Amino acid sequence: MRNIKMTVEYDGARYLGWQRLGDSDKTVQGKIENILSNMTGEEIEIVGSGRTDAGTHAHGQVANFKTESVMTLEAMQEHLNRYLPRDIVVKEVLDVPDRFHARYHAISKKYSYYIWNNTVPSAFERNRSFHVSDELNYSLMHQASQKFVGRHDFLGFSSLKKSKKSTVRTIESIKIIEHGNLVQFAFVGEGFLYNQIRIIMGTILAIGAGRMQLEDIDAIFTSGIRAQAGETVPAHGLFLDEVYYEEV
Amino acid sequence: MRNIKMTVEYDGARYLGWQRLGDSDKTVQGKIENILSNMTGEEIEIVGSGRTDAGTHAHGQVANFKTESVMTLEAMQEHLNRYLPRDIVVKEVLDVPDRFHARYHAISKKYSYYIWNNTVPSAFERNRSFHVSDELNYSLMHQASQKFVGRHDFLGFSSLKKSKKSTVRTIESIKIIEHGNLVQFAFVGEGFLYNQIRIIMGTILAIGAGRMQLEDIDAIFTSGIRAQAGETVPAHGLFLDEVYYEEV
Repeated sequence: MRNIKMTVEYDGARYLGWQRLGDSDKTVQGKIENILSNMTGEEIEIVGSGRTDAGTHAHGQVANFKTESVMTLEAMQEHLNRYLPRDIVVKEVLDVPDRFHARYHAISKKYSYYIWNNTVPSAFERNRSFHVSDELNYSLMHQASQKFVGRHDFLGFSSLKKSKKSTVRTIESIKIIEHGNLVQFAFVGEGFLYNQIRIIMGTILAIGAGRMQLEDIDAIFTSGIRAQAGETVPAHGLFLDEVYYEEV
Repeated sequence: MRNIKMTVEYDGARYLGWQRLGDSDKTVQGKIENILSNMTGEEIEIVGSGRTDAGTHAHGQVANFKTESVMTLEAMQEHLNRYLPRDIVVKEVLDVPDRFHARYHAISKKYSYYIWNNTVPSAFERNRSFHVSDELNYSLMHQASQKFVGRHDFLGFSSLKKSKKSTVRTIESIKIIEHGNLVQFAFVGEGFLYNQIRIIMGTILAIGAGRMQLEDIDAIFTSGIRAQAGETVPAHGLFLDEVYYEEV
């Protein structure tokens, strides 16, 4: 039995997200599984590093699957890219040790959120960035972003109700990179709560636009009340860039 | 009577090109005219700097139109961008002298052709670049491109049959700019023949891949035989970036 690891890029605009939903043809996992199952004659199930929401993109989602196929890696990748729709691309295929698990062994992930910061929208970036016409204070946004770095209880910055599960997470870094009007907010962390990045982004942008203050972040960490934070910005600005693994 | 000049960006993937075709709703000109006509109550006709083919994009198409409307420029632009589909954006609207004509007064244009040069295609650049998996010799392609700069009879590099109209044109510059795997070929010239850039690109890429030789370019300038040149690369890699005007 082989264990295959693959790295997948997708433009999420047309999909209901990564995770397969019954027989729906509208998920990335479903698309890939159908092709692999046809290719191998086995019923292939792939394990992704984690879900991505409807409309969210990936430069480097990672998944693995077990197969008895003896195809070469090259032939496998070529077959996948020939039959996958053009908005899903398998960038790399590797044989990995049997114990490798794309979700359990992920130690951290990099996500980027892109905004298009201009009074006029962009015809090209419309599905891959959130259009923000506000004049933003980048120095304040940098300060705001650094308040999220480190180990915190992110309950107030997630869509979760208070639950028994811990909402403590560690964000390793947040970087703001300007590419002209297209601005990237790169997050690296061990794991993120549901909607955590999109709510943090809504909060950073509210501070940049002067609708919230830096001190509000501390207050929300203390209160844990999600309603005090910024809006949940749209999924279509979010990219899963990279998944980092421990040695297995 | 006002004369309004506008700069338009569009993602051409869904359109049959710039130029209106009867009542078709599938051209950029048609989309804009419909909105302007509804906005002003007049029958507005816009004059573009030139056509762009089906699937071709623009960062800076220029057009003008006459109107008796007294709307502010700001209100006009806002109205257009509110009602236009999100893949067409009006970037600028200006009052210009009555005699300004977007086609007649254009003195040169900048186009860019993008290729995605990697064995694996790109999920994101798929509609905005031509996927080339060949290993390309960039130094040879630079030399090839410089052979097209200057004043030449481009008959062999156009889709025109021999006609009474001159096929002599001047290309001011061709620059190759690498953005990682995405490579831009930027053309500036006083005007281009039908398919000229796409055939020149097919020829440069054939030379880069070793399927044609540098000397072939000279031979085609001499023979004027289009069949000797490279393929016509797809429209979806082509962008009209900018139109330059004389003072009017």
